[in-house]
Amino acid sequence: MSPTSPDHDFSRLDAWWRAANYLSVGQIYLMDNPLLGEPLRLDHIKPRLLGHWGTTPGLNFVYAHMNRAIKARDLDAIFIAGPGHGGPGVVANVYLEGSYSEVYPAVSRDAAGMRRLFTQFSFPGGIPSHVAPETPGSIHEGGELGYALLHAFGAVFDNPALVACCVVGDGEAETGALAASWHSNKFLNPARDGAVLPILHLNGYKIAGPTVLARIGDEQLAQLMRGYGWEPHFVSGDEPFAMHAAMAHALDASLEAIGAIQAEAREDGFSTRRRWPMIVLRTPKGWTGPKNVDGAAIEGTFRAHQVPLTGFAEDPAHIGLLEDWMRSYRPEELFDAAGSLRPEIAAQAPEGSRRMSANPHANGGLLLKDLLLPDFRTYAVAVTTPGAVRAEATRVAGQFLRDVMRLNDAHANFRIMGPDETASNRLGAVFEVSDRTSTALIEPGDDHVSPDGRVMEVLSEHLCQGWLEGYLLTGRHGFFSCYEAFIHIIDSMFNQHAKWLKTTRKIPWRRPVASMNYLLTSHVWQQDHNGFSHQDPGFIDHVANKSADVVRVYLPPDANTLLSVVDHCLRSRDYVNVIVAGKAPAHQWLDMAAAERHCRAGLGVWTWASNDEGVAPDVVMACAGDVPTLETLAAVDLLRQELPELKVRVVNVVDVMALQSPLAHPHGVSNATFDSMFTTDAPVIFAWHGYPALIHRLTYQRANHGNFHVHGYREEGTTTTPFDMTVLNRLDRFHLAAAAIDCVPRIRDIAGHVQQRLRDRLLEHHAYIRCHGQDMPEIAGWQWPAR
Amino acid sequence: MSPTSPDHDFSRLDAWWRAANYLSVGQIYLMDNPLLGEPLRLDHIKPRLLGHWGTTPGLNFVYAHMNRAIKARDLDAIFIAGPGHGGPGVVANVYLEGSYSEVYPAVSRDAAGMRRLFTQFSFPGGIPSHVAPETPGSIHEGGELGYALLHAFGAVFDNPALVACCVVGDGEAETGALAASWHSNKFLNPARDGAVLPILHLNGYKIAGPTVLARIGDEQLAQLMRGYGWEPHFVSGDEPFAMHAAMAHALDASLEAIGAIQAEAREDGFSTRRRWPMIVLRTPKGWTGPKNVDGAAIEGTFRAHQVPLTGFAEDPAHIGLLEDWMRSYRPEELFDAAGSLRPEIAAQAPEGSRRMSANPHANGGLLLKDLLLPDFRTYAVAVTTPGAVRAEATRVAGQFLRDVMRLNDAHANFRIMGPDETASNRLGAVFEVSDRTSTALIEPGDDHVSPDGRVMEVLSEHLCQGWLEGYLLTGRHGFFSCYEAFIHIIDSMFNQHAKWLKTTRKIPWRRPVASMNYLLTSHVWQQDHNGFSHQDPGFIDHVANKSADVVRVYLPPDANTLLSVVDHCLRSRDYVNVIVAGKAPAHQWLDMAAAERHCRAGLGVWTWASNDEGVAPDVVMACAGDVPTLETLAAVDLLRQELPELKVRVVNVVDVMALQSPLAHPHGVSNATFDSMFTTDAPVIFAWHGYPALIHRLTYQRANHGNFHVHGYREEGTTTTPFDMTVLNRLDRFHLAAAAIDCVPRIRDIAGHVQQRLRDRLLEHHAYIRCHGQDMPEIAGWQWPAR
Repeated sequence: MSPTSPDHDFSRLDAWWRAANYLSVGQIYLMDNPLLGEPLRLDHIKPRLLGHWGTTPGLNFVYAHMNRAIKARDLDAIFIAGPGHGGPGVVANVYLEGSYSEVYPAVSRDAAGMRRLFTQFSFPGGIPSHVAPETPGSIHEGGELGYALLHAFGAVFDNPALVACCVVGDGEAETGALAASWHSNKFLNPARDGAVLPILHLNGYKIAGPTVLARIGDEQLAQLMRGYGWEPHFVSGDEPFAMHAAMAHALDASLEAIGAIQAEAREDGFSTRRRWPMIVLRTPKGWTGPKNVDGAAIEGTFRAHQVPLTGFAEDPAHIGLLEDWMRSYRPEELFDAAGSLRPEIAAQAPEGSRRMSANPHANGGLLLKDLLLPDFRTYAVAVTTPGAVRAEATRVAGQFLRDVMRLNDAHANFRIMGPDETASNRLGAVFEVSDRTSTALIEPGDDHVSPDGRVMEVLSEHLCQGWLEGYLLTGRHGFFSCYEAFIHIIDSMFNQHAKWLKTTRKIPWRRPVASMNYLLTSHVWQQDHNGFSHQDPGFIDHVANKSADVVRVYLPPDANTLLSVVDHCLRSRDYVNVIVAGKAPAHQWLDMAAAERHCRAGLGVWTWASNDEGVAPDVVMACAGDVPTLETLAAVDLLRQELPELKVRVVNVVDVMALQSPLAHPHGVSNATFDSMFTTDAPVIFAWHGYPALIHRLTYQRANHGNFHVHGYREEGTTTTPFDMTVLNRLDRFHLAAAAIDCVPRIRDIAGHVQQRLRDRLLEHHAYIRCHGQDMPEIAGWQWPAR
Repeated sequence: MSPTSPDHDFSRLDAWWRAANYLSVGQIYLMDNPLLGEPLRLDHIKPRLLGHWGTTPGLNFVYAHMNRAIKARDLDAIFIAGPGHGGPGVVANVYLEGSYSEVYPAVSRDAAGMRRLFTQFSFPGGIPSHVAPETPGSIHEGGELGYALLHAFGAVFDNPALVACCVVGDGEAETGALAASWHSNKFLNPARDGAVLPILHLNGYKIAGPTVLARIGDEQLAQLMRGYGWEPHFVSGDEPFAMHAAMAHALDASLEAIGAIQAEAREDGFSTRRRWPMIVLRTPKGWTGPKNVDGAAIEGTFRAHQVPLTGFAEDPAHIGLLEDWMRSYRPEELFDAAGSLRPEIAAQAPEGSRRMSANPHANGGLLLKDLLLPDFRTYAVAVTTPGAVRAEATRVAGQFLRDVMRLNDAHANFRIMGPDETASNRLGAVFEVSDRTSTALIEPGDDHVSPDGRVMEVLSEHLCQGWLEGYLLTGRHGFFSCYEAFIHIIDSMFNQHAKWLKTTRKIPWRRPVASMNYLLTSHVWQQDHNGFSHQDPGFIDHVANKSADVVRVYLPPDANTLLSVVDHCLRSRDYVNVIVAGKAPAHQWLDMAAAERHCRAGLGVWTWASNDEGVAPDVVMACAGDVPTLETLAAVDLLRQELPELKVRVVNVVDVMALQSPLAHPHGVSNATFDSMFTTDAPVIFAWHGYPALIHRLTYQRANHGNFHVHGYREEGTTTTPFDMTVLNRLDRFHLAAAAIDCVPRIRDIAGHVQQRLRDRLLEHHAYIRCHGQDMPEIAGWQWPAR
C-alpha cells in the first residue's frame, strides 16, 4: 500500500520513532536499568543531567521518515542535523541502525550496550552532548548554529546521486549564515549536483524566547521560502499518526519533485532554475515528553528545551514521572528481553551503506581521490638574478590552479571559492577552463558565468566556507581565496572546522580528508585602494591559537615559493593551511629550485643577500611575507651601501610554524637549526607581515629571543600608497635599517650621519607622496643590485 | 505641483544629481582644473586612480530624492550608504549641502575648495575611498559590507521621529548579516521607534560577477521581500527623468505608508505588525558614465565597477573622453564662475540639521545623555570571609542592570542585547522591568515577550552587534551579553567598530559615544553542558590586537568585582570593553570596599591569601578570571597545608591591560608597581583564563618576564565537569601547586612526597569522575580556610 494512502500502516515507523525517543531520554537521564527491568531508582539516574530534549523528538521523527523513503526509493542520502544540540536523537538512530556498534563494538546491541550508550552520553570520558565527529554519519557538528544548509549543499555539489536531508532549526534560522544560505540553490546544478531537502523544523522557541520564523505566520513564511526559490510543504501538528501520514506525503512529494527537476536537467540539459521542494515541519517543542511538571506546562513550551524533569533527589515523585515518560514509549514492544531491537522494527532501517549513519559520503576520506597535480615547477617565473623581474604571485598561482582544475575535471572533485572574486585576486586564469557557477539568470554581457562552472563566487565568506567544508568533508578538494581582512568573518567557522579536525584525529574510523586551503591575498600591505577597513592581518593569530596538529601558516615571499606552497597544501590532509600572498606586481627572489628548497626547509639564510660570510653576523635581518621581505632587502641594500663594514645576515621565513619549538609544533625546527640561523646573541630585526606579538610568541622558547625586535602591523592605516603603509607602521626600509644600526653599538656610534640621512629620506618621501600622490621613483623602482 | 504629478519639474533635482555626479567623478580623477575652466590635461589627472564609480550615481540619485522628500515633509532623516565604497558620492552630497565646509573649512564652497575636495580623495594625507568616520552624516563605514540595515535599525530604535534611509547594495545583500537583518522589522515597534526605509539598489554586479538578487527575477524578489515582511516598490530604468518621476512616486508612497503605520500604532497602540515599505531600485552600474571605451561596453557592465576610464598617459584620447564625460553633467549650469553651487540648486537641500549630513543623530555624542546609574555597591554580595559564600556573578550583575534599565526607562536610551538569551546568562532580573522585544506574533505561554521590551534577543550575534553599534553611534547606551565562544562570530564587526572608534579619536567634530560593552559569559571553563564547540577564549586575543586607545579587557574574579567593572564600563566613552565573567555559582572573595579598590587598581596582591608577609616570596601565584582564581587559591591552600615554609604571594588581575607597559596601554602600571607585585626574580605561576600566549605578550617588557609560567586554555575540551576541564588543560589546583613547587629548588628538593600526593589525587579525581560523572566532593566542596 502506498505510504501516501490514508490507510497506510505507520505502526512500525512509529515504533522506530518511539525507540529513538526512548533511547534519547535514556541517554539524557540513565546510567543503569536501561530497559526499565526494575522500578526506576535514584541511583539509576545520572547525577549531572545534560542534553537538549526539546529538539530531539523532531529529529527522530524526520530520521524515521527518511529511512522509510530511503528504503522505498533506494536513496543515497545523508542526514544533517542543524539542531545538533539534539545529539541524543541522532545517536539513538545511529545505534538503532547498528552502525554505532560497528564502529564502537563495546556499545553493543543489547542491554549491556544500551547501558553503556546511556551512560557515556555527556559523561566524563564519554561522548559530547551534540552531534559531533564521534557520531557516525555526521559531517556537521551541531554546536555552533547556522551552517547546516551550507554543509548540505557542499556535500551534494558534484554528487549527483546524493540527497542531503537537512533539518534546520528555527533558532539557527535566525543566524546570518543560515539566512543567506537558502540562496545556495542558485549555485546548484540539477544536471550534475545532488539535491538538498531542507526541513525547517519550527518548534517555536530558541531557549526561552520565541523564534522569528515560527512567529511570522504561514503566509509570510511561504512567501519567504518562495522568494528564496523553494516550494514549501507544510506539515504541522502533534498527533503522531496524523503527522506520520502528513510527513510521508510531504516527503514523497518532495522527493518526486527533486526527481523531476533532476530528470529534466539530466535529459535535456539545464535550462531554467526550478523551485526546489522543502518542508516546514511544525511540532511542539519536546514533543511526546512530559506534558506538565509541578503544575507548569512542559511539552510545547520553552521549558522543554533542555532537561525537562529534574530534582529527583529533592522530589522522589519525579522519578515516577520519568519512569512513566519512558514507559510511554512501550519499550517492551521495541526491545526484546536481551535489549535488542525487535527484528520487524530493525527492518525499518535501510541496509549497509544506504543507512544514513553508514553512508560513505559522511566519512569523506573513504571516497577521497588524490588530486591530479601538474608539475608546479613548469609554472615558474624565470629568475636569473634576485629581484630583477617582477610578477604577480597570485596570477602565477592562478595558472597552476587552472591546470589543477583542468586535470581533475573528469573527476569533478575540485572547486575554487571566493567572496571577493577570483579575477580581482588575479586567479583569473582559471576562467580559461571553468566558469563562475550560477543557475540564476545569466545575461549576455556576463563574464564567464555558467551553470557548469566550478568557481564559486558569492559575496559571503560564510557561504564560501560552509560550502567548502561540506565539499571537503565528503571527500573532495578545494581552494578558498579571500581578502585577508575579511577572512575574520569566518573566524568562528574556522574554529569549528579546526576543532572537528582535531577531534577526528582521535577517531580511527574517520578517514583523512583534504585540507582546508586558504589563500589570503589583497592583504594588509596592498590595500592602498580600500584603506583602513580592509587592513587586518590578525587571522594568523587566530589560527595560531588552535591545535598545532591541524594548523599551518605559510607566507611565501614570491611567486615561485607560492607555487611550491600551493602544491604542498593541495596534497596535504586534515589540515587548515593558511597562505598569505600578494597579488600586486612584486620582486621575484628565488628561481624554482631555490624556491623549492626554501619551502621544504620552511626558513633559511639567504646567503646571496647576506655579507656575514657565514660567520657571526652583527645583525640578523629576518623577514616573513612578501612586503616585509622587499623592505628588508631594500634595508639591507641601504646598509651595505652606507655601512659595508656591518655584517648582515638575511633570514627568510616561509613556514611560520617552523619558528616554534618542535615540541610546540611538528614543523618547528630544532634549537640547533634555529640558532644556526638566528644566532644565540646577535640582534634580530624581524620584519613581519602581521601583528608583531605573534613572532615573539612563536620564538619565545628560543635562546636568542631576548634580542628579537619585531616590526609589523601596528594598526595604522588609511587609503595611501603601499610604501607609505609600511612607513606608517615602521616596517619600511628606512626604519628597518635604522633599527639595525641602533642595535649594533660599534656601528651606532659611528653612523650618526647615516641615521640622519635615513630620517631625511623618510621626510622626503613624506613630502613627495603628499604632493604627488605616489611613491618616489627611487622607492617604487628600487632593485636589488647585482653584486 | 505634487512631485508625483506627471508634470512635476524635476530639473533642479536633476541638476543636484548631476552636480553630485560631477563632483564624484572629479574626486576620482582630478587634482586640478576642477571646473574644467581650461581643456583637461594629463597633469590635471591624479597619478593613482582609486575609487568605485559603479555604485556612486545610484547613491547620488537616492540622496537627491531624499532631499526633496525631507524638504517636502520636514523629515528627520539620516542616510546609510550600504555600498559605502561609493564614498565620492556621499562626500559630494555632503559638500553640496555645505556641511563639509562647515567642519572642514579648508574645503570651501568655491573653486579652491573644490580642487581640495578632489585632490584629497583617496590621496595620501587625504580622506579614505569609502564612506568613513571622516564623512559628516555617516554612522556607517562602508568598507566591510553587510551591516547597513543593522546600523539603520539600531539608529531608529527609540528614535520615533527618525527615518533611516538605507541603501543596500546587491553585493552586500549576499552576506549573511544582511540576509538576516531584513528580519529586524520583527523587533521594530512603530509606536516608539522610528522607521527604516531600505532601498535595495540592484546594479547587477558585485565586481565582475552577477549578484544573486539581481538575477532571481522580480517575482521571486518581491516574494522574498514580502516574506521578510516588507512591501516592495520597484523603480527600474535608466532614463533620468522617467526615473525621477518613478523614484519620487515610490519614495512618497513609502513615506506615506510609514506615516500610516506609525500613526496607527501611536494613536491606538501597537497591535499587529504591518508590512513596511521598501524600494527596489534597478539602475545600470556606472549609470551616466562612459557608455563605451575602446570598443568595450562600460555603463551597465561590470567594467564600470571601479575606475572605468584609465590609461591617460598611454592613450591621450582618453583625456578627451574623461572631459566629455565630466562636461556631460554641464558643470557651467551647476556652479558659478567662482565654483559655488548655484543658489537655485543649493536650495534643493534641506536646511541646518535637517540636512542628512548635519543630522545630530549621525554624530550621536552630541545627543548622548549620561546613564542614570544606581549605586552598584548596594547590590553587593555580603562577603565576611573570603570564599565563605557562593553566588552567581552574572545574576548579581543582572540586578544592577535591571535597575539601570528602570532608572533610564523615561529616557528610552538603554538596551540589552543577547543571542544566547538573557535568562540563560542569568541576567533574568531585567525581565522584572522590561520584556524581550518582539512585534511578531506573541503567544499566550510566552515568557516576558512584548513589543515594548528593550531586551533584544535574536539568535544572531551579527544582529545584536549591528543593532547595538547603530544604537550607540546615535547617542544611546547598551550592553551585549554573549556566550564567550560565539562572540568570534562578530570578530570582523568588532574590528570595524574598533577602527571606527580609533579614527574618530582624531576627528574633533565627532563627539564621544558610549562604549560597546560585552559581557562574555558561559565561558570556556563552564561549558560542561555543551562541550568542545563552545570552548574558545580567543576573543580577548583578537581584541588585544586593536589599538590600545580603544580596547579594555576585564576579568572580575567574583560578583562584587563584576559589579564595579560593569558600573565603570557603563560610564565610559569611546571604548570597547570586554568583560569575562561566569554565571555558575562560585566562591566570592572580596567585600564591596575591597572589590572597588581592587578594580580601581586593576590588579593587586591579595595579602589575605599570601604568607610572604610582604617580603620576598618564594613564588608568586598570579591569576586572572574566576575559575583560574578559584584554582589558584585552592592550590595555595594545598601548598600552605603541605609546605608551610613556602612563602607564597597571590596576585589577582582584573584589568588585563594593566599588565602592559604604560607605553603600550594607558592602563599599564609602572614598572615599579609591577615589580612590587610580581618581583623581579621570583617564579610566577600565572593561572589565566585564556590562551597562555597573551600573558607573555602583555608582560614581555617586564623585568621578571623570563620567570612567568602561564597556565591557561590549551585547546583541550569536551563535555565534562568544570573541574575536569581545568585538569585537561593543567590549570587545576594540583597542577598549579606542583608547578609552584617545581620552580623553587629549595622546596622541590624536599617535596617529592608532596608531588607524589598531588599526582595521586589527580588520578583519584580521574577515576572518580569517570565512575560517578561528577567531581569529588572534596573538590566541589573546597573552601578557603579561615586562617
